[in-house]
Amino acid sequence: MSTQSIRVIPLGGVGEIGKNATLVEYGDDLLLVDAGLKFPEEEMLGIDLVIPDISFLQEVQHRLRGIIITHGHEDHIGALPYILANVSVPVYATSLTRGLITVKLKEHKLLGKRDVDLISSKEPLVLGPFTVQPFRVTHSIPDAVGFAIHTPAGTIVFTGDFKFDQTPVSGPPADFGTLASIGERGVLALLSDCTRVEKAGYTPSERVIRGSFDSIIRDLPGRVIITTFASNIIRVQQALDVAHRYGRKVALVGRSMENNCAIANELGFLEFPEDTVYKLDDVRRFGLDQVMLITTGSQGEPSSVLSRIASGDHRQIRAMAGDTVILSATPIPGNEETVARTIDNLMRLGSDVIYEPLADVHVSGHGSREELKLMLNLIRPRYCMPVHGEYRHLVLYRRLAAEAGIPPENVILAEIGDVVQFDDEGAKKVDHHSIGSVLVDGVNVGGTTEVVLRDRQHLSRDGVLIVAITLDQTTGSIVAGPEVVSRGFTDPSLDGEGTLIGEARERIREAIEDAATSTVEYGFVVSKVKETLSDFVYKQTRTRPMILPVITEV
Amino acid sequence: MSTQSIRVIPLGGVGEIGKNATLVEYGDDLLLVDAGLKFPEEEMLGIDLVIPDISFLQEVQHRLRGIIITHGHEDHIGALPYILANVSVPVYATSLTRGLITVKLKEHKLLGKRDVDLISSKEPLVLGPFTVQPFRVTHSIPDAVGFAIHTPAGTIVFTGDFKFDQTPVSGPPADFGTLASIGERGVLALLSDCTRVEKAGYTPSERVIRGSFDSIIRDLPGRVIITTFASNIIRVQQALDVAHRYGRKVALVGRSMENNCAIANELGFLEFPEDTVYKLDDVRRFGLDQVMLITTGSQGEPSSVLSRIASGDHRQIRAMAGDTVILSATPIPGNEETVARTIDNLMRLGSDVIYEPLADVHVSGHGSREELKLMLNLIRPRYCMPVHGEYRHLVLYRRLAAEAGIPPENVILAEIGDVVQFDDEGAKKVDHHSIGSVLVDGVNVGGTTEVVLRDRQHLSRDGVLIVAITLDQTTGSIVAGPEVVSRGFTDPSLDGEGTLIGEARERIREAIEDAATSTVEYGFVVSKVKETLSDFVYKQTRTRPMILPVITEV
Repeated sequence: MSTQSIRVIPLGGVGEIGKNATLVEYGDDLLLVDAGLKFPEEEMLGIDLVIPDISFLQEVQHRLRGIIITHGHEDHIGALPYILANVSVPVYATSLTRGLITVKLKEHKLLGKRDVDLISSKEPLVLGPFTVQPFRVTHSIPDAVGFAIHTPAGTIVFTGDFKFDQTPVSGPPADFGTLASIGERGVLALLSDCTRVEKAGYTPSERVIRGSFDSIIRDLPGRVIITTFASNIIRVQQALDVAHRYGRKVALVGRSMENNCAIANELGFLEFPEDTVYKLDDVRRFGLDQVMLITTGSQGEPSSVLSRIASGDHRQIRAMAGDTVILSATPIPGNEETVARTIDNLMRLGSDVIYEPLADVHVSGHGSREELKLMLNLIRPRYCMPVHGEYRHLVLYRRLAAEAGIPPENVILAEIGDVVQFDDEGAKKVDHHSIGSVLVDGVNVGGTTEVVLRDRQHLSRDGVLIVAITLDQTTGSIVAGPEVVSRGFTDPSLDGEGTLIGEARERIREAIEDAATSTVEYGFVVSKVKETLSDFVYKQTRTRPMILPVITEV
Repeated sequence: MSTQSIRVIPLGGVGEIGKNATLVEYGDDLLLVDAGLKFPEEEMLGIDLVIPDISFLQEVQHRLRGIIITHGHEDHIGALPYILANVSVPVYATSLTRGLITVKLKEHKLLGKRDVDLISSKEPLVLGPFTVQPFRVTHSIPDAVGFAIHTPAGTIVFTGDFKFDQTPVSGPPADFGTLASIGERGVLALLSDCTRVEKAGYTPSERVIRGSFDSIIRDLPGRVIITTFASNIIRVQQALDVAHRYGRKVALVGRSMENNCAIANELGFLEFPEDTVYKLDDVRRFGLDQVMLITTGSQGEPSSVLSRIASGDHRQIRAMAGDTVILSATPIPGNEETVARTIDNLMRLGSDVIYEPLADVHVSGHGSREELKLMLNLIRPRYCMPVHGEYRHLVLYRRLAAEAGIPPENVILAEIGDVVQFDDEGAKKVDHHSIGSVLVDGVNVGGTTEVVLRDRQHLSRDGVLIVAITLDQTTGSIVAGPEVVSRGFTDPSLDGEGTLIGEARERIREAIEDAATSTVEYGFVVSKVKETLSDFVYKQTRTRPMILPVITEV
């Protein structure tokens, strides 16, 4: 009975954008679709990356037949090195995606230890009971695919991230023929991208960017700096083509930009026009009106090339009057402020900056409402499960699916860890695993707990007061201290006698001496210090710094 | 000679949005236009508000003839209580603005001690050498004005925040006649709002909202919750009108919403339709399809009514399936994530949420490019100085002004503290005062320094390690400790023997004992501890927590 159903367990990508990873279960066998990371939310202080729960994958690894990857964006491949360091499992991807994964494995010193096998939309892949049929889609990176996964219990389709670009710049359009024939054969469930369900109509074709770049750059008397995602190979191609048209020499700047372009060029996904791409040092010998730089930093990331140029901090590149900077990207939610600041800084240096909405210099890689409906009408699934969206996107997708004839009860809104079962009987949540997220903090994967984050939030708000006291272990009286040290604490009075800290020290001393008994009650002293200092400080400042008594005994 | 020029000194509002405050200087006399606050930037950890430099105003208060206020938004009046607590100066505002200021003074226990005088567009105000002529503009709050300030050296015009709403909901359109006649008489300099210079065309009229509310609410079977800025009295009016049309009873929820609506109603700027506005407790006796709640929380502020409803945390209101929540506002840059989370949470509770871009439920209160040009063509100033914008807005405004015939060199881009002189000779920066911003942290106004903020940032990233050691003051050897306490520090090993902290303690002990001399070199011990622990921890975790040695001697 259980082998006549398919189960889907999202490890990420539902109720959140990023960290896409979905387990497909048939009988005893498992298949993982994508293994992405996401960037930390605002309150995850000090965290570098967030990846799916690796321990869950370790538990089930003996049943895992493989990991199949839709495309080479961070939110679909970024967790692979962390997973592969702990789980031994074959990985399958198309050519460019494999190339980008290989760059990552190299960085994590896993190359050679873990291989990635090549798949193509021409040949289905058989992994245990799963027959995986990749199909071409269009997205903001070349060589993107979705998957039809056939099992004895039926077929489920992952769209991957997609738009229906009818005039793509790189490669052919989505494989409508295959999509239609998959739909004809009958599909149990569709797991669809829903990122852009808030937008009516169609997302413009990537091709419109070429025209924008051309009209901006044609008559420019100065240098051009174009910034976009390092993985947006298609955008880079268009920039190179326009540069070539106007005889500009291009330097690709930034490690990830250089690496990604190199691998894309090597694999045939990025064509370097003749006599166009140079090393940064070599473009210097050309006049500024003959130069284009293509850099990372479209999200205002502090360590990116563009941010460093904008803050006058880049070793080789200085922005100046006469430069035109094109931000060929829109800020990811949460990055609006840093992007705005980068623009401001560039303008302060006298550069011109062109960004949305001043000109059409970016289009999304995700399909809008009409494209999502077209996918539904091609695949005609019995059930749907929207992925790659915040919770509101999932809800809006359910409504959109209703417009396309899918009853709302056939659209499952899953949360991470839900076990969603699809079979002839229906679609329902049958179980829930408590699957978390793993926080990457420096080299520490998973050691930074909720408690640590809460402490960081507390510290960041009001700072910390440390009280060091040395007590006589026989009498409980103070031998040395109290020393009070503050960091990040708002002190209206600052140093010197009669200060807030000075008075606090007196209060603590009195409180302890009043309470001194013949032996040291460690817990009692600690809570006495906390209480005394907390009350005093709150009355004076209306803030609640973290208070850390450190008691030593001699 | 100096009395034949006017000088303008921005204390805020240039290169930043918010904290509008501009000093106008003629001869020995000064006039302050607006006194706003801004909300802290992301990296100002723990800060509540940011206000203009009060100490500078204290220095010049004997020359200050008054504070004139354009309208009642926080970024134009929010700093008044802090300024008036320290500076004794008369304040002038229109009726509603005065009402809203009075609410603030009451909260700060300044009512009676400081008065606000009424001004109107009918009567110029003479303050020393300044003749102030207010003129009506339209904005997202009623009773907004701009000022023409006439001096013997010429006239300068402050637009205040404005749009040209040709069909305003509350009150008449902007006073085109007065604006044109001010322009006819000749204007030396225009200080113009430039917030929305990135947007082409015209900002839609506030009136379109009425139609949106009507079509959404007309056939709704459940409760409606509308959220907007507490100061957006005009939006509230339209919500009340639609509620009345469909027989819904309205409760105004949230302290600032209740206070602002009460004062606006009292002063005749907000009309309560018959039998429509009830107390929250009293709307309960009506069916859900007969109820509308109007609340604060459109920015996802954690303590706001809507956020608390969304997180199931409000004492009286529970969101549920059947509710429709209308977010009648767009997120201020930086608030996108918290607003998105509020929407997600409401949807998780089963409520429907309507927001931009799903429906036209918000329009801006600031004029777009065509309106900014219309203002330029009405006033026809010799010089311009854009205000109320980030640096990129100032730059874009200079280009826009060029389209309207103002040479770029006649448009001054000022920074905070610049002294900009306008006279027959030209417009130029003649001086710069080092004017800062004052951070409000709890009750502490100005005590939170850059150093404190940097420490909070450090603490928030990697946490803190405290090392307490008691040394013998004659031998320098360790009497007690080292105790190592961590907070917010990522520890891969957690508690117990053989842990990272345990090993760190050993390293420190060894380092000190190796170095022990006959007397305690306090600085030496501290730097030894820092160095030893920092190196060890970085090698183990690749993080750099703050390290705080606390050494006591016995």
